[in-house]
Amino acid sequence: MKQNTALIIIDMINKMDFDGGENLLENSLLVAERLKEFKKKVKQQGVPVIYVNDNFGLWQDNASELLEECKKGTGEPVVEQMEPDEDDYFIIKPKHSGFFGTQLSILLDHLEVKNLILTGVAGDICVIFTANDAYMREYNLWVPEDGIASEYKEDNENALRIMKRSLAARTDSLDSSLLGHIFSS
Amino acid sequence: MKQNTALIIIDMINKMDFDGGENLLENSLLVAERLKEFKKKVKQQGVPVIYVNDNFGLWQDNASELLEECKKGTGEPVVEQMEPDEDDYFIIKPKHSGFFGTQLSILLDHLEVKNLILTGVAGDICVIFTANDAYMREYNLWVPEDGIASEYKEDNENALRIMKRSLAARTDSLDSSLLGHIFSS
Amino acid sequence: MKQNTALIIIDMINKMDFDGGENLLENSLLVAERLKEFKKKVKQQGVPVIYVNDNFGLWQDNASELLEECKKGTGEPVVEQMEPDEDDYFIIKPKHSGFFGTQLSILLDHLEVKNLILTGVAGDICVIFTANDAYMREYNLWVPEDGIASEYKEDNENALRIMKRSLAARTDSLDSSLLGHIFSS
Amino acid sequence: MKQNTALIIIDMINKMDFDGGENLLENSLLVAERLKEFKKKVKQQGVPVIYVNDNFGLWQDNASELLEECKKGTGEPVVEQMEPDEDDYFIIKPKHSGFFGTQLSILLDHLEVKNLILTGVAGDICVIFTANDAYMREYNLWVPEDGIASEYKEDNENALRIMKRSLAARTDSLDSSLLGHIFSS
Repeated sequence: MKQNTALIIIDMINKMDFDGGENLLENSLLVAERLKEFKKKVKQQGVPVIYVNDNFGLWQDNASELLEECKKGTGEPVVEQMEPDEDDYFIIKPKHSGFFGTQLSILLDHLEVKNLILTGVAGDICVIFTANDAYMREYNLWVPEDGIASEYKEDNENALRIMKRSLAARTDSLDSSLLGHIFSS
Repeated sequence: MKQNTALIIIDMINKMDFDGGENLLENSLLVAERLKEFKKKVKQQGVPVIYVNDNFGLWQDNASELLEECKKGTGEPVVEQMEPDEDDYFIIKPKHSGFFGTQLSILLDHLEVKNLILTGVAGDICVIFTANDAYMREYNLWVPEDGIASEYKEDNENALRIMKRSLAARTDSLDSSLLGHIFSS
Repeated sequence: MKQNTALIIIDMINKMDFDGGENLLENSLLVAERLKEFKKKVKQQGVPVIYVNDNFGLWQDNASELLEECKKGTGEPVVEQMEPDEDDYFIIKPKHSGFFGTQLSILLDHLEVKNLILTGVAGDICVIFTANDAYMREYNLWVPEDGIASEYKEDNENALRIMKRSLAARTDSLDSSLLGHIFSS
Repeated sequence: MKQNTALIIIDMINKMDFDGGENLLENSLLVAERLKEFKKKVKQQGVPVIYVNDNFGLWQDNASELLEECKKGTGEPVVEQMEPDEDDYFIIKPKHSGFFGTQLSILLDHLEVKNLILTGVAGDICVIFTANDAYMREYNLWVPEDGIASEYKEDNENALRIMKRSLAARTDSLDSSLLGHIFSS
């Protein structure tokens, strides 16, 4: 794993207080457990971690406030697992793609990142939107098939197929032995 | 059909000289025949037509030159059918989404357009990318299921499902009776 | 004053720990006193207040943390005067223009704002950059001549002249009787 | 002069059929003569030339048509001097900055350009807007003081001062001996 790789965690700090939120919560919890371990592992290798998270209507660019708000919601069990460390980056997004109306691409330039590991929810909405924008900006993509979740399994798989085919994304699982060399070439 | 609607035609002026181009050509030809008629019909109702087209590496923002180039390629039969009229708009895009690095959103503001009919190729790449960006910019979307084509049928259907579910897109067919009132509400 | 107007406060939450910071601090303090009153007055009329503020290298989209940091810096006296209220919006920018890499234009759409009162520092850098971007996005601009400050007076005046001439900005002072009708037409 | 440098020519293909156009025409003609020579010289050294030009309301991304249109206008003498070569790039912009709603930054990435020589008109509008956007994207800037023109000399000088101070731009003249090493460090 090279330093020019970043781990992106999308919308895991989440109220989940919308229709379909319960389904998404269940699927997200499974991802959260795996992702927590994976995050620990890649941080030890110097990979920066960037939360890219919905603003949930607050429009404050205030991560502290956003965290407090989301702990009060249905998504609390996921928030507990995924709470950002002090040295993680935290970027608030107003729309679906992590690149739209955010400082993400400027931060990635600043960190000299070329490879993105995209994780989080929902696979068929914010993850795929962010992946599209990342691809147009010429990042190499790894979207681990067990590192994203959607409300419905079938939609999650559709999204993975599209990202694999149209965005040249790797979709190997989080515990893949690829970890060491997936972006090494 | 209201004047605040535009017909977007994506990448139909196309060399199709890439791997998989033959498949795409065959599928695009079917779309081109239907789309030509549809274009005629909506223009009579005052709907502006906007070609949004790959630059094919020319980087010249020169539609005349682009047309000449594409007529020399495999895609020529489609280009013949879909040649733009003098009063159509023509926007050249450098990447997959019609909104990325183009004047499209500024033109749509200028035309006071709120509703987009997205058509063209490829459904699972440039059409879905453009649809994503359109959705984030709060346009209402109609992506007629028989107005787009991809290299593979299954991928085209996947893309339609994603656009329907995640982008709230209508996918009714081109000859749908919805034409008159689909965006009327 | 119509509801489609917003007060933008640029970089007043500021460490001012750079070369030239002392000059800027002195000039900013004068602005801060006037601006504090002006802000109170326009809020009573329902005008939303949007802080648009440098990230000072934190990359956290965390307004709370940013405020704490800036209180420790040379700019503390200005921060004290200009501390945001709970109901003010707070947007963090990574570069000079408030529109570049931020959710500002999406928030302004959301608030249906068409007219901007641009205030803050530095007039010849972040204010004029933000003004340029605002003008291209077709906002009407009021940049009160006593609501902005730069390190050097002459540079501040140059910036005002450019904004007046090239961006069609009004530059009337904060206590202008224009307040009631400047954007009414 | 390194290959990672590009010469940008702004709005020299110009109708000049607006108020103040006559003044601008006179000032632009002086620039055109010098710029024509300069362009020849830098092309011999392998520097790519990129025209970045207003759309003049055509919305067609059609350089051929734009050239024809502008030859019919007041600006014809300048257009004659500055007509693009076949191997020059041509980018059409809908607004003042060459980066807003265009493929410019994608082309510059593609060409691996880091240093820009900004020339053309008007210095106090489109040139300074483009310079601002270039600076935020971390390009090094050379805006030759005799390579730009504005309607009024004083405004041109103001713009140069702002670009020098706030954008760290070099403003040495076109025939400067700096040509060989200005961006060499």
